[in-house]
Amino acid sequence: MKIEQKLQELGITLPKAPKPVAAYVPVKQSGNTLYLSGQLPMVDGKLQYTGKVGGERTAEEGSVAAKICAINALAAINEHIGSLDKVKSILKLQVFIASVVGFDGQPEVANGASEFFVEVFGQEIGSHARSALGTNQLPRDATVEIDLVVEVE
Amino acid sequence: MKIEQKLQELGITLPKAPKPVAAYVPVKQSGNTLYLSGQLPMVDGKLQYTGKVGGERTAEEGSVAAKICAINALAAINEHIGSLDKVKSILKLQVFIASVVGFDGQPEVANGASEFFVEVFGQEIGSHARSALGTNQLPRDATVEIDLVVEVE
Amino acid sequence: MKIEQKLQELGITLPKAPKPVAAYVPVKQSGNTLYLSGQLPMVDGKLQYTGKVGGERTAEEGSVAAKICAINALAAINEHIGSLDKVKSILKLQVFIASVVGFDGQPEVANGASEFFVEVFGQEIGSHARSALGTNQLPRDATVEIDLVVEVE
Repeated sequence: MKIEQKLQELGITLPKAPKPVAAYVPVKQSGNTLYLSGQLPMVDGKLQYTGKVGGERTAEEGSVAAKICAINALAAINEHIGSLDKVKSILKLQVFIASVVGFDGQPEVANGASEFFVEVFGQEIGSHARSALGTNQLPRDATVEIDLVVEVE
Repeated sequence: MKIEQKLQELGITLPKAPKPVAAYVPVKQSGNTLYLSGQLPMVDGKLQYTGKVGGERTAEEGSVAAKICAINALAAINEHIGSLDKVKSILKLQVFIASVVGFDGQPEVANGASEFFVEVFGQEIGSHARSALGTNQLPRDATVEIDLVVEVE
Repeated sequence: MKIEQKLQELGITLPKAPKPVAAYVPVKQSGNTLYLSGQLPMVDGKLQYTGKVGGERTAEEGSVAAKICAINALAAINEHIGSLDKVKSILKLQVFIASVVGFDGQPEVANGASEFFVEVFGQEIGSHARSALGTNQLPRDATVEIDLVVEVE
Protein backbone atom coordinates (compact mmCIF):
# COMPACT_ATOMS: atom_id res chain seq x y z
CA MET A 1 0.00 0.00 0.00
CA LYS A 2 3.09 2.17 -0.12
CA ILE A 3 2.36 3.64 -3.55
CA GLU A 4 -1.33 4.10 -2.81
CA GLN A 5 -0.35 6.15 0.26
CA LYS A 6 2.09 8.17 -1.78
CA LEU A 7 -0.65 8.93 -4.29
CA GLN A 8 -2.94 10.01 -1.43
CA GLU A 9 -0.26 12.35 -0.12
CA LEU A 10 -0.05 13.83 -3.60
CA GLY A 11 -3.82 14.30 -3.56
CA ILE A 12 -4.36 11.84 -6.40
CA THR A 13 -7.16 9.33 -6.54
CA LEU A 14 -6.63 6.72 -9.22
CA PRO A 15 -9.48 6.87 -11.71
CA LYS A 16 -11.04 3.82 -13.23
CA ALA A 17 -8.74 3.04 -16.14
CA PRO A 18 -10.11 4.67 -19.31
CA LYS A 19 -11.53 2.17 -21.76
CA PRO A 20 -9.50 1.83 -24.92
CA VAL A 21 -11.09 3.94 -27.64
CA ALA A 22 -10.93 1.02 -30.07
CA ALA A 23 -10.17 -2.68 -30.65
CA TYR A 24 -7.30 -3.32 -28.25
CA VAL A 25 -6.58 -3.89 -24.56
CA PRO A 26 -5.06 -1.49 -22.03
CA VAL A 27 -2.19 -3.79 -21.00
CA LYS A 28 -0.56 -6.93 -22.39
CA GLN A 29 1.92 -8.86 -20.28
CA SER A 30 4.89 -11.03 -21.30
CA GLY A 31 6.76 -12.52 -18.39
CA ASN A 32 7.47 -9.60 -16.08
CA THR A 33 7.08 -6.99 -18.78
CA LEU A 34 3.93 -4.94 -19.26
CA TYR A 35 3.22 -3.19 -22.54
CA LEU A 36 0.71 -0.37 -22.15
CA SER A 37 -1.59 1.11 -24.72
CA GLY A 38 -1.36 4.77 -25.59
CA GLN A 39 -2.86 6.88 -22.81
CA LEU A 40 -4.72 10.08 -23.56
CA PRO A 41 -5.44 12.97 -21.14
CA MET A 42 -8.90 11.70 -20.26
CA VAL A 43 -10.73 12.56 -17.03
CA ASP A 44 -14.06 10.82 -16.34
CA GLY A 45 -14.17 9.54 -19.90
CA LYS A 46 -13.70 12.98 -21.42
CA LEU A 47 -10.57 14.38 -23.06
CA GLN A 48 -9.36 17.29 -20.94
CA TYR A 49 -6.76 18.61 -23.35
CA THR A 50 -7.13 18.89 -27.10
CA GLY A 51 -5.24 21.08 -29.55
CA LYS A 52 -1.60 21.58 -30.41
CA VAL A 53 1.14 22.86 -28.15
CA GLY A 54 2.54 26.06 -29.57
CA GLY A 55 -0.90 26.75 -31.03
CA GLU A 56 -4.04 26.56 -28.88
CA ARG A 57 -2.06 25.05 -26.01
CA THR A 58 0.88 26.26 -23.97
CA ALA A 59 3.77 24.06 -22.90
CA GLU A 60 2.45 24.28 -19.34
CA GLU A 61 -0.93 22.94 -20.39
CA GLY A 62 0.83 20.19 -22.35
CA SER A 63 2.75 19.25 -19.23
CA VAL A 64 -0.46 18.94 -17.21
CA ALA A 65 -1.94 16.84 -20.01
CA ALA A 66 1.12 14.55 -19.87
CA LYS A 67 0.63 14.11 -16.12
CA ILE A 68 -3.01 13.15 -16.64
CA CYS A 69 -1.88 10.55 -19.19
CA ALA A 70 0.56 9.23 -16.59
CA ILE A 71 -2.17 8.97 -13.94
CA ASN A 72 -4.28 7.00 -16.41
CA ALA A 73 -1.31 4.73 -17.09
CA LEU A 74 -1.04 3.99 -13.36
CA ALA A 75 -4.75 3.22 -13.27
CA ALA A 76 -4.33 0.75 -16.13
CA ILE A 77 -1.33 -0.92 -14.46
CA ASN A 78 -3.14 -1.08 -11.14
CA GLU A 79 -6.18 -2.77 -12.68
CA HIS A 80 -3.93 -5.24 -14.47
CA ILE A 81 -1.67 -6.36 -11.60
CA GLY A 82 -3.83 -5.42 -8.59
CA SER A 83 -1.32 -3.19 -6.80
CA LEU A 84 1.16 -0.54 -7.84
CA ASP A 85 3.52 -1.90 -5.17
CA LYS A 86 4.36 -4.66 -7.68
CA VAL A 87 5.90 -2.16 -10.09
CA LYS A 88 9.65 -2.82 -10.15
CA SER A 89 10.74 -0.40 -12.86
CA ILE A 90 9.30 2.09 -15.29
CA LEU A 91 11.45 1.04 -18.23
CA LYS A 92 10.48 3.17 -21.19
CA LEU A 93 8.23 6.15 -21.69
CA GLN A 94 7.31 7.49 -25.10
CA VAL A 95 5.64 10.89 -25.18
CA PHE A 96 3.94 12.06 -28.35
CA ILE A 97 3.05 15.73 -28.31
CA ALA A 98 0.69 17.33 -30.81
CA SER A 99 2.76 20.31 -31.86
CA VAL A 100 2.70 23.16 -34.31
CA VAL A 101 5.83 23.40 -36.41
CA GLY A 102 8.22 25.69 -34.57
CA PHE A 103 7.38 24.52 -31.05
CA ASP A 104 10.38 22.52 -29.89
CA GLY A 105 9.89 22.30 -26.13
CA GLN A 106 8.67 18.69 -26.18
CA PRO A 107 11.09 17.73 -23.35
CA GLU A 108 9.45 20.16 -20.92
CA VAL A 109 5.98 18.93 -21.86
CA ALA A 110 7.06 15.32 -21.37
CA ASN A 111 8.44 16.18 -17.94
CA GLY A 112 4.85 16.40 -16.73
CA ALA A 113 4.75 12.60 -16.97
CA SER A 114 8.41 11.88 -16.14
CA GLU A 115 8.50 13.90 -12.94
CA PHE A 116 5.23 12.38 -11.81
CA PHE A 117 6.57 8.83 -12.13
CA VAL A 118 9.67 9.72 -10.10
CA GLU A 119 7.54 11.52 -7.50
CA VAL A 120 5.31 8.47 -7.07
CA PHE A 121 7.84 5.62 -7.26
CA GLY A 122 11.11 7.31 -6.30
CA GLN A 123 14.21 7.56 -8.47
CA GLU A 124 15.19 3.90 -8.69
CA ILE A 125 11.83 2.51 -9.76
CA GLY A 126 10.30 5.62 -11.32
CA SER A 127 13.15 6.91 -13.47
CA HIS A 128 13.01 5.70 -17.03
CA ALA A 129 14.39 5.87 -20.52
CA ARG A 130 12.34 8.27 -22.57
CA SER A 131 11.67 9.55 -26.05
CA ALA A 132 9.65 12.68 -26.64
CA LEU A 133 8.61 13.85 -30.06
CA GLY A 134 6.19 16.09 -31.81
CA THR A 135 3.44 14.97 -34.13
CA ASN A 136 1.10 16.94 -36.34
CA GLN A 137 -1.99 15.13 -35.13
CA LEU A 138 -3.06 12.80 -32.32
CA PRO A 139 -6.25 10.73 -31.98
CA ARG A 140 -9.33 12.81 -31.07
CA ASP A 141 -7.09 15.87 -31.33
CA ALA A 142 -5.53 15.01 -27.94
CA THR A 143 -2.65 17.27 -26.91
CA VAL A 144 -0.50 14.43 -25.57
CA GLU A 145 -0.35 10.64 -25.78
CA ILE A 146 2.00 8.46 -23.73
CA ASP A 147 3.12 4.91 -24.02
CA LEU A 148 4.92 2.74 -21.43
CA VAL A 149 6.92 -0.43 -20.94
CA VAL A 150 7.01 -1.48 -17.29
CA GLU A 151 8.69 -4.23 -15.31
CA VAL A 152 6.63 -5.83 -12.54
CA GLU A 153 7.17 -8.49 -9.90
CA MET B 1 -1.62 -25.36 -39.09
CA LYS B 2 -4.47 -23.82 -37.11
CA ILE B 3 -3.60 -20.25 -38.03
CA GLU B 4 -2.89 -21.10 -41.66
CA GLN B 5 -6.38 -22.62 -41.90
CA LYS B 6 -7.87 -19.57 -40.29
CA LEU B 7 -6.13 -17.37 -42.84
CA GLN B 8 -7.47 -19.57 -45.63
CA GLU B 9 -11.00 -19.23 -44.25
CA LEU B 10 -10.49 -15.47 -44.33
CA GLY B 11 -9.37 -15.75 -47.94
CA ILE B 12 -5.86 -14.58 -47.16
CA THR B 13 -2.73 -16.03 -48.69
CA LEU B 14 0.40 -14.95 -46.89
CA PRO B 15 2.64 -13.10 -49.30
CA LYS B 16 6.37 -13.47 -49.33
CA ALA B 17 7.53 -11.06 -46.64
CA PRO B 18 8.39 -7.72 -48.25
CA LYS B 19 12.10 -7.02 -48.29
CA PRO B 20 13.14 -4.20 -45.98
CA VAL B 21 13.49 -1.02 -48.01
CA ALA B 22 16.88 -0.34 -46.44
CA ALA B 23 19.73 -1.58 -44.21
CA TYR B 24 17.90 -3.60 -41.59
CA VAL B 25 16.21 -6.97 -41.07
CA PRO B 26 12.49 -7.78 -40.92
CA VAL B 27 12.62 -9.43 -37.48
CA LYS B 28 15.10 -9.58 -34.60
CA GLN B 29 14.54 -12.04 -31.75
CA SER B 30 15.56 -11.86 -28.10
CA GLY B 31 14.51 -14.88 -26.07
CA ASN B 32 10.83 -15.34 -26.84
CA THR B 33 10.33 -11.77 -27.97
CA LEU B 34 10.23 -10.73 -31.61
CA TYR B 35 10.79 -7.14 -32.65
CA LEU B 36 9.42 -6.39 -36.08
CA SER B 37 10.46 -3.75 -38.54
CA GLY B 38 7.98 -1.17 -39.69
CA GLN B 39 5.55 -2.70 -42.19
CA LEU B 40 4.17 -0.71 -45.10
CA PRO B 41 1.03 -1.47 -47.15
CA MET B 42 2.94 -3.28 -49.88
CA VAL B 43 1.39 -5.86 -52.21
CA ASP B 44 3.69 -7.72 -54.60
CA GLY B 45 6.51 -5.31 -53.83
CA LYS B 46 4.44 -2.24 -54.64
CA LEU B 47 2.93 0.25 -52.20
CA GLN B 48 -0.85 0.02 -52.46
CA TYR B 49 -1.69 3.08 -50.39
CA THR B 50 0.10 6.38 -50.49
CA GLY B 51 -1.09 9.80 -49.39
CA LYS B 52 -2.49 11.24 -46.19
CA VAL B 53 -5.68 10.28 -44.44
CA GLY B 54 -8.01 13.25 -44.31
CA GLY B 55 -6.44 14.41 -47.57
CA GLU B 56 -6.13 12.07 -50.57
CA ARG B 57 -7.19 9.10 -48.44
CA THR B 58 -10.30 8.32 -46.46
CA ALA B 59 -10.26 6.67 -43.05
CA GLU B 60 -11.71 3.54 -44.68
CA GLU B 61 -8.80 3.38 -47.11
CA GLY B 62 -6.40 3.92 -44.22
CA SER B 63 -7.99 1.02 -42.40
CA VAL B 64 -7.50 -1.27 -45.40
CA ALA B 65 -3.90 -0.09 -45.62
CA ALA B 66 -3.41 -0.95 -41.93
CA LYS B 67 -4.76 -4.46 -42.57
CA ILE B 68 -2.32 -4.94 -45.45
CA CYS B 69 0.52 -3.90 -43.13
CA ALA B 70 -0.73 -6.48 -40.63
CA ILE B 71 -0.77 -9.22 -43.28
CA ASN B 72 2.82 -8.33 -44.17
CA ALA B 73 3.74 -8.50 -40.49
CA LEU B 74 2.35 -12.04 -40.30
CA ALA B 75 4.36 -12.96 -43.38
CA ALA B 76 7.53 -11.67 -41.71
CA ILE B 77 6.80 -13.54 -38.48
CA ASN B 78 5.99 -16.72 -40.39
CA GLU B 79 9.27 -16.61 -42.33
CA HIS B 80 11.16 -16.00 -39.11
CA ILE B 81 9.68 -18.74 -36.89
CA GLY B 82 8.33 -21.13 -39.52
CA SER B 83 4.72 -21.27 -38.32
CA LEU B 84 2.22 -18.75 -37.03
CA ASP B 85 1.00 -21.42 -34.60
CA LYS B 86 4.04 -20.53 -32.49
CA VAL B 87 2.73 -17.02 -31.83
CA LYS B 88 1.79 -16.83 -28.15
CA SER B 89 0.85 -13.17 -27.87
CA ILE B 90 0.70 -10.01 -29.94
CA LEU B 91 2.14 -7.74 -27.27
CA LYS B 92 2.34 -4.28 -28.70
CA LEU B 93 1.19 -2.64 -31.90
CA GLN B 94 2.21 0.85 -32.95
CA VAL B 95 0.29 2.37 -35.83
CA PHE B 96 1.64 5.46 -37.54
CA ILE B 97 -0.87 7.13 -39.81
CA ALA B 98 0.09 9.77 -42.35
CA SER B 99 -2.52 12.41 -41.59
CA VAL B 100 -3.46 15.92 -42.54
CA VAL B 101 -3.84 18.24 -39.59
CA GLY B 102 -7.46 18.09 -38.52
CA PHE B 103 -7.98 14.37 -39.16
CA ASP B 104 -8.20 12.76 -35.72
CA GLY B 105 -9.72 9.35 -36.45
CA GLN B 106 -6.44 7.45 -36.11
CA PRO B 107 -8.05 4.84 -33.80
CA GLU B 108 -10.50 3.75 -36.51
CA VAL B 109 -7.71 3.52 -39.08
CA ALA B 110 -5.59 1.46 -36.68
CA ASN B 111 -8.51 -0.91 -36.11
CA GLY B 112 -7.87 -2.28 -39.58
CA ALA B 113 -4.78 -3.97 -38.11
CA SER B 114 -6.08 -4.58 -34.60
CA GLU B 115 -9.28 -6.34 -35.63
CA PHE B 116 -7.38 -8.46 -38.11
CA PHE B 117 -5.00 -9.77 -35.44
CA VAL B 118 -7.93 -10.68 -33.18
CA GLU B 119 -9.76 -12.30 -36.10
CA VAL B 120 -6.75 -14.46 -36.94
CA PHE B 121 -5.45 -15.39 -33.48
CA GLY B 122 -8.53 -14.95 -31.27
CA GLN B 123 -8.85 -12.57 -28.34
CA GLU B 124 -6.31 -14.07 -25.96
CA ILE B 125 -3.37 -14.26 -28.35
CA GLY B 126 -4.37 -11.58 -30.82
CA SER B 127 -5.44 -8.74 -28.54
CA HIS B 128 -2.67 -6.27 -27.85
CA ALA B 129 -1.61 -3.01 -26.30
CA ARG B 130 -1.63 -0.32 -28.94
CA SER B 131 -0.62 3.22 -29.73
CA ALA B 132 -1.95 5.03 -32.76
CA LEU B 133 -0.73 8.40 -33.82
CA GLY B 134 -0.63 10.73 -36.77
CA THR B 135 2.48 11.82 -38.58
CA ASN B 136 2.97 14.40 -41.30
CA GLN B 137 5.01 12.07 -43.51
CA LEU B 138 5.80 8.38 -43.82
CA PRO B 139 8.49 6.66 -45.92
CA ARG B 140 7.64 6.50 -49.65
CA ASP B 141 4.53 8.55 -48.81
CA ALA B 142 2.90 5.40 -47.38
CA THR B 143 -0.50 5.98 -45.77
CA VAL B 144 0.16 3.69 -42.80
CA GLU B 145 3.14 2.02 -41.13
CA ILE B 146 2.87 -0.52 -38.32
CA ASP B 147 5.32 -1.88 -35.84
CA LEU B 148 5.00 -4.96 -33.58
CA VAL B 149 6.40 -6.68 -30.53
CA VAL B 150 5.35 -10.35 -30.39
CA GLU B 151 5.83 -13.21 -27.94
CA VAL B 152 6.49 -16.62 -29.46
CA GLU B 153 7.02 -20.15 -28.16
CA MET C 1 38.12 -4.43 -26.52
CA LYS C 2 37.05 -5.73 -29.91
CA ILE C 3 34.39 -3.06 -30.46
CA GLU C 4 36.58 -0.28 -29.10
CA GLN C 5 39.25 -1.25 -31.65
CA LYS C 6 36.67 -1.31 -34.41
CA LEU C 7 35.57 2.19 -33.44
CA GLN C 8 39.20 3.34 -33.50
CA GLU C 9 39.62 1.88 -36.98
CA LEU C 10 36.57 3.87 -38.02
CA GLY C 11 38.14 6.97 -36.55
CA ILE C 12 35.46 7.33 -33.90
CA THR C 13 36.12 8.29 -30.31
CA LEU C 14 33.17 7.67 -28.07
CA PRO C 15 32.04 10.95 -26.55
CA LYS C 16 30.87 11.25 -22.99
CA ALA C 17 27.21 10.27 -23.18
CA PRO C 18 25.09 13.41 -23.58
CA LYS C 19 23.08 14.26 -20.47
CA PRO C 20 19.35 13.78 -20.89
CA VAL C 21 17.78 17.16 -21.64
CA ALA C 22 15.13 16.57 -18.98
CA ALA C 23 13.85 14.37 -16.12
CA TYR C 24 14.83 10.90 -17.23
CA VAL C 25 17.83 8.57 -17.46
CA PRO C 26 19.84 7.57 -20.54
CA VAL C 27 19.35 3.81 -20.09
CA LYS C 28 17.05 1.57 -18.05
CA GLN C 29 17.75 -2.16 -17.86
CA SER C 30 15.39 -5.10 -17.37
CA GLY C 31 17.12 -8.46 -17.30
CA ASN C 32 19.30 -8.49 -20.39
CA THR C 33 17.32 -5.82 -22.18
CA LEU C 34 18.37 -2.18 -22.31
CA TYR C 35 15.89 0.54 -23.16
CA LEU C 36 17.58 3.72 -24.37
CA SER C 37 16.35 7.25 -24.24
CA GLY C 38 15.92 9.24 -27.42
CA GLN C 39 19.30 10.31 -28.78
CA LEU C 40 19.77 13.61 -30.54
CA PRO C 41 22.60 14.61 -32.90
CA MET C 42 24.63 16.32 -30.16
CA VAL C 43 28.38 16.84 -30.30
CA ASP C 44 30.10 18.28 -27.22
CA GLY C 45 26.75 19.17 -25.71
CA LYS C 46 25.61 21.12 -28.74
CA LEU C 47 23.06 20.07 -31.36
CA GLN C 48 24.86 19.69 -34.69
CA TYR C 49 21.80 19.32 -36.87
CA THR C 50 18.58 21.25 -36.56
CA GLY C 51 15.88 21.85 -39.15
CA LYS C 52 13.72 19.64 -41.30
CA VAL C 53 14.85 17.25 -43.99
CA GLY C 54 13.42 18.30 -47.31
CA GLY C 55 13.53 21.89 -46.06
CA GLU C 56 16.71 23.36 -44.53
CA ARG C 57 18.35 19.93 -44.50
CA THR C 58 19.17 17.43 -47.20
CA ALA C 59 18.74 13.69 -46.86
CA GLU C 60 22.55 13.39 -46.75
CA GLU C 61 22.74 15.76 -43.79
CA GLY C 62 19.93 13.84 -42.11
CA SER C 63 21.88 10.64 -42.58
CA VAL C 64 24.96 12.14 -40.90
CA ALA C 65 22.73 13.37 -38.07
CA ALA C 66 21.37 9.83 -37.65
CA LYS C 67 24.91 8.48 -37.41
CA ILE C 68 25.77 11.03 -34.70
CA CYS C 69 22.68 9.91 -32.77
CA ALA C 70 23.92 6.33 -33.12
CA ILE C 71 27.38 7.24 -31.80
CA ASN C 72 25.72 8.89 -28.80
CA ALA C 73 23.65 5.77 -28.25
CA LEU C 74 26.83 3.69 -28.12
CA ALA C 75 28.30 6.13 -25.61
CA ALA C 76 25.21 5.74 -23.42
CA ILE C 77 25.33 1.93 -23.65
CA ASN C 78 29.05 1.91 -22.92
CA GLU C 79 28.65 4.04 -19.79
CA HIS C 80 25.81 1.80 -18.62
CA ILE C 81 27.39 -1.64 -19.07
CA GLY C 82 31.09 -0.74 -19.11
CA SER C 83 32.02 -2.28 -22.44
CA LEU C 84 30.42 -2.48 -25.86
CA ASP C 85 31.73 -6.03 -26.12
CA LYS C 86 28.79 -7.03 -23.92
CA VAL C 87 26.29 -6.02 -26.60
CA LYS C 88 24.66 -9.22 -27.90
CA SER C 89 22.09 -7.77 -30.26
CA ILE C 90 20.74 -4.46 -31.46
CA LEU C 91 17.10 -5.45 -31.33
CA LYS C 92 15.06 -2.47 -32.39
CA LEU C 93 15.84 0.94 -33.77
CA GLN C 94 13.28 3.69 -34.13
CA VAL C 95 14.29 6.67 -36.23
CA PHE C 96 12.23 9.83 -36.07
CA ILE C 97 13.06 12.30 -38.81
CA ALA C 98 11.92 15.93 -38.75
CA SER C 99 10.53 16.23 -42.26
CA VAL C 100 8.66 18.65 -44.42
CA VAL C 101 5.55 17.21 -46.00
CA GLY C 102 6.57 15.76 -49.35
CA PHE C 103 9.95 14.42 -48.25
CA ASP C 104 9.57 10.65 -48.13
CA GLY C 105 13.18 9.42 -48.07
CA GLN C 106 13.16 8.58 -44.37
CA PRO C 107 14.66 5.10 -45.02
CA GLU C 108 17.82 6.58 -46.54
CA VAL C 109 18.19 9.04 -43.65
CA ALA C 110 17.74 6.23 -41.13
CA ASN C 111 20.43 4.21 -42.90
CA GLY C 112 22.98 6.61 -41.40
CA ALA C 113 22.32 4.90 -38.06
CA SER C 114 21.56 1.39 -39.34
CA GLU C 115 24.68 1.03 -41.45
CA PHE C 116 26.82 2.34 -38.62
CA PHE C 117 25.55 -0.31 -36.20
CA VAL C 118 26.28 -3.07 -38.71
CA GLU C 119 29.71 -1.59 -39.45
CA VAL C 120 30.61 -1.55 -35.75
CA PHE C 121 29.08 -4.82 -34.55
CA GLY C 122 28.86 -6.89 -37.73
CA GLN C 123 25.70 -8.28 -39.28
CA GLU C 124 24.66 -10.77 -36.60
CA ILE C 125 24.84 -8.43 -33.62
CA GLY C 126 24.40 -5.10 -35.37
CA SER C 127 21.50 -5.78 -37.70
CA HIS C 128 18.16 -4.84 -36.23
CA ALA C 129 14.45 -4.43 -36.73
CA ARG C 130 13.69 -0.83 -37.57
CA SER C 131 10.96 1.71 -38.00
CA ALA C 132 11.60 5.06 -39.63
CA LEU C 133 9.04 7.80 -39.77
CA GLY C 134 8.69 11.48 -40.34
CA THR C 135 7.51 13.98 -37.76
CA ASN C 136 6.67 17.65 -38.08
CA GLN C 137 8.79 18.66 -35.10
CA LEU C 138 11.47 17.20 -32.84
CA PRO C 139 12.78 18.50 -29.50
CA ARG C 140 15.09 21.55 -29.83
CA ASP C 141 14.33 21.43 -33.56
CA ALA C 142 16.69 18.43 -33.93
CA THR C 143 16.78 16.91 -37.41
CA VAL C 144 16.80 13.30 -36.18
CA GLU C 145 16.08 11.41 -32.96
CA ILE C 146 16.74 7.71 -32.47
CA ASP C 147 15.60 5.21 -29.94
CA LEU C 148 16.97 1.71 -29.22
CA VAL C 149 16.23 -1.59 -27.55
CA VAL C 150 19.39 -3.65 -27.05
CA GLU C 151 20.19 -7.11 -25.71
CA VAL C 152 23.31 -7.41 -23.57
CA GLU C 153 25.17 -10.21 -21.82
